[in-house]
Amino acid sequence: MTDTSQHSFESIIEELAGSGNSRTWSILVTIFGDLAQKTGDEISGPLLSSLTQRIGIKPQAMRVALHRLRRDGWIATEKVGRTSKHRLTEYGLSQSLIASPRIYAATINPPEAWHVLLANPDTQIDEKNLVIRGYRRVLPNVHVGAGHAPQGVGDFLVVEGTLSTIPEWLQALIADAATVEEYIRLEQNLDVVAGALDNGYSPTISETAVIRALIVHDWRRIVLRQPNLSLELVPGSPSAQCRANVWKLLARLERPTLEALEVATT
Amino acid sequence: MTDTSQHSFESIIEELAGSGNSRTWSILVTIFGDLAQKTGDEISGPLLSSLTQRIGIKPQAMRVALHRLRRDGWIATEKVGRTSKHRLTEYGLSQSLIASPRIYAATINPPEAWHVLLANPDTQIDEKNLVIRGYRRVLPNVHVGAGHAPQGVGDFLVVEGTLSTIPEWLQALIADAATVEEYIRLEQNLDVVAGALDNGYSPTISETAVIRALIVHDWRRIVLRQPNLSLELVPGSPSAQCRANVWKLLARLERPTLEALEVATT
Repeated sequence: MTDTSQHSFESIIEELAGSGNSRTWSILVTIFGDLAQKTGDEISGPLLSSLTQRIGIKPQAMRVALHRLRRDGWIATEKVGRTSKHRLTEYGLSQSLIASPRIYAATINPPEAWHVLLANPDTQIDEKNLVIRGYRRVLPNVHVGAGHAPQGVGDFLVVEGTLSTIPEWLQALIADAATVEEYIRLEQNLDVVAGALDNGYSPTISETAVIRALIVHDWRRIVLRQPNLSLELVPGSPSAQCRANVWKLLARLERPTLEALEVATT
Repeated sequence: MTDTSQHSFESIIEELAGSGNSRTWSILVTIFGDLAQKTGDEISGPLLSSLTQRIGIKPQAMRVALHRLRRDGWIATEKVGRTSKHRLTEYGLSQSLIASPRIYAATINPPEAWHVLLANPDTQIDEKNLVIRGYRRVLPNVHVGAGHAPQGVGDFLVVEGTLSTIPEWLQALIADAATVEEYIRLEQNLDVVAGALDNGYSPTISETAVIRALIVHDWRRIVLRQPNLSLELVPGSPSAQCRANVWKLLARLERPTLEALEVATT
């Protein structure tokens, strides 16, 4: 490893890991999601330690996070001799698969069906629950969600079908300052990595795995928090561009195989 | 004409004509719509005078109303010798045909398509215009209309498709006191007419034409003012029952032909 590439990797990590205040367990989920999303995929204890240490995660923090992920049913750990083998559980795999299209798709196609929930103005609705399920509040008592309306929505009047183009007032509502800011910061991070690669930095496969994980993690934090009716559906928004740039960069950082990573760690 | 039937007709007219404060021109539109809705149909001056006088409309009021309807393009008048012949214009016929299904249908089938207009909360919308076009305001900045969304609705977010069952809070909003009151009053009027017929009252064809016109007029005033998303779509509402009763009563009062009415007048 040359001094220059060491410098490149460190500044990339500083940029990518420094920008978020992510929980360790959340980063672990991203690592498993990026590297070990097939049934049977396993990551050894030493490999996981090696990857997380490169990000700056302390061994104790990783142990705590792994404990939590096992407790919540995301990850299973098996001891083989003196070595631990970690893998996503059935549940972890299914959750990971649900999120994957939104994270890894090169472009987002708007859903064919939408529905709007119109709530009784005289009762309190569980707005938080709707937002968690991907609904966008467009007006007081009015939430728009993707796909068909779920059964048994109770007290709502529901209109289900197609959505018109998004008028400017709603575009402005969707492109709120905090969301736009997040996209801009991610773009800056992507630029740092792309710039290093342009300048001849050639990461090792372990570095590649770590850089990929951090990019995916940053991106995932943004897109999975976005409602169905998101900035990506607004023409010319920073979001669609950001997705294209994430995709372009991940293509330059080819996903290493677990086998190669295990070999590189030992 | 027996004393009893004279009495029946007078009390019916008192009930039906007394309950509304309708403009004469509006009653004339109903008469033409009920009796002369085919191209070529004409009502002579003497017949029109005879019918309106039976309702209690003064000759001078009828002349003013006819003048207004000609000016607004609803009615055309031709002099044949000393007799005037009145008919709906092309425009009048088309307007009458648009309204007919909503007035005369035995039952109302909900439209297959609906659409909801979601308005920019920061701008003033022309709510009056939407209401005239049959939209129902269900929430602030939210209007529901029947059928497909019109082109070029501008600043609205539009969701177009199917409508869920109407939740109770919206049923209550739709069944506002004033509307329910109108239906109840009309039911009472229908009862008076049905009661007289049950008691053996057999109206002349001129009386039939007048009673029909007044029933249709009362009913028309209510239903045409109702938004697309109306009380008729609320299960068990007074409105669907009222429509059935109007229809039953009109079936008992067979529409006279213009020829027979002209003969009866001369």
